[in-house]
Amino acid sequence: MSRPTILVTNDDGITAPGIRALVEVASEFGEVIVVAPDSPQSGKGHALTLEKPLRLKKVDIFDGITAYKCTGTPVDCVKMAKDIVLNDRLADLCVSGINHGSNASLNIIYSGTMSAAMEASFEGIKSIGFSLTEFSHKANLEPAKKYMRHIIKQILEHGMPNTNLINVNIPYPEDGNIKGVKVCRQAKAKWVEEYLEREDPMGGKYYWLTGKFVNQDEGTDSDVWALENNYVSVVPALHDLTDYNAISGLKNLEL
Amino acid sequence: MSRPTILVTNDDGITAPGIRALVEVASEFGEVIVVAPDSPQSGKGHALTLEKPLRLKKVDIFDGITAYKCTGTPVDCVKMAKDIVLNDRLADLCVSGINHGSNASLNIIYSGTMSAAMEASFEGIKSIGFSLTEFSHKANLEPAKKYMRHIIKQILEHGMPNTNLINVNIPYPEDGNIKGVKVCRQAKAKWVEEYLEREDPMGGKYYWLTGKFVNQDEGTDSDVWALENNYVSVVPALHDLTDYNAISGLKNLEL
Repeated sequence: MSRPTILVTNDDGITAPGIRALVEVASEFGEVIVVAPDSPQSGKGHALTLEKPLRLKKVDIFDGITAYKCTGTPVDCVKMAKDIVLNDRLADLCVSGINHGSNASLNIIYSGTMSAAMEASFEGIKSIGFSLTEFSHKANLEPAKKYMRHIIKQILEHGMPNTNLINVNIPYPEDGNIKGVKVCRQAKAKWVEEYLEREDPMGGKYYWLTGKFVNQDEGTDSDVWALENNYVSVVPALHDLTDYNAISGLKNLEL
Repeated sequence: MSRPTILVTNDDGITAPGIRALVEVASEFGEVIVVAPDSPQSGKGHALTLEKPLRLKKVDIFDGITAYKCTGTPVDCVKMAKDIVLNDRLADLCVSGINHGSNASLNIIYSGTMSAAMEASFEGIKSIGFSLTEFSHKANLEPAKKYMRHIIKQILEHGMPNTNLINVNIPYPEDGNIKGVKVCRQAKAKWVEEYLEREDPMGGKYYWLTGKFVNQDEGTDSDVWALENNYVSVVPALHDLTDYNAISGLKNLEL
């Protein structure tokens, strides 16, 4: 059997340490193609670039690996990988990350890392988004690499039953001692925004988004619980957003 | 009882005809606050602006209505509306649109219109995204206004049972004859990309995203079916992306 084709992308940009770690791990299992943003694209969700054209440039930054940087969003990268780089040939696996920062719970919706993986999953490609709960680009990625290696191996060998997309978050305990892997559900949570108001030299106001993540979930089967207890969380994710439980109630409303 | 506070936003920008139509309809039911992008933000999904600060400016373009234009994405608009304009007071209803173009099926995930409504729904605010299947800004919006009025009225009177978010798409039949409203599920579909390749004066290549929407759903209970048959589609939408049907299979994988 030929080696699988593995598409690697991220949202922190092609020069981030996280994607380098993921490229190293993925190369152990297959032919890796990298298409990643040329600049940080955190929090870009499922954004497309429609208002301006995109550039795609081959770069030689991963030893012996075909790689392209793209001027667009993570989702643009996956679309360009499919249509231009792979010329409509489907990758066998798409891995995105490893993100510098958690994408557990509601963050899946804001995350460029997860949106890129989701975009690939629309095609039926098995896709994994990896994120580390630590933001620092200086973090030790070795414990995370061990789990990325194990999960990629298992998915390539056994497939991904009943889903095409998993959101994998990896904790960063001080002692490096990750306890194992839990398959979870997305924790119920929200963000409370607080905009920093500043003044420019002309007296005009401008605002920086800041916020606080508030976990509203007391369950022990959520991704936030797993991470707080030093387990890797794995959440299977869907893209049919229909809330089937609400259909009959709405039908009674005479809309 | 005091009149409800209704937050109005969109993704086509504050000067689009669609938001003007929605402001007119919403004003019949409550105190309207508009916070909308100052430029077109189609296809921006759930993108946030993290890499640069945002501006928010009061504008007098809707007669007697408090309105702000924002330099960010649709989701930024909703966050700024909550934290800055409403000072953490929750709106009673959020309506987004009416979008110039369909947001049925998978488009809910790419759509700034729907992401704005979803962002408001995170707070428990009842939220409605409205879209028209016609792209032209010159479209006759009167038939759509009739349905927006009816749906807003019913939701304000009866609530939104078991959900906080609905994706409403309104067809644009040539004869103006919309047949009614169907509560539906999101159709299974995908986009097939085709990038247009061009050359700049220096010989560098650049690419424009184009694509074709492919309906893969033969059901008669989907939003695409409803629209093709000249019904308004109403799909309740969730933001817990956990694919619960895949959890037990993944647990057997020894991840």
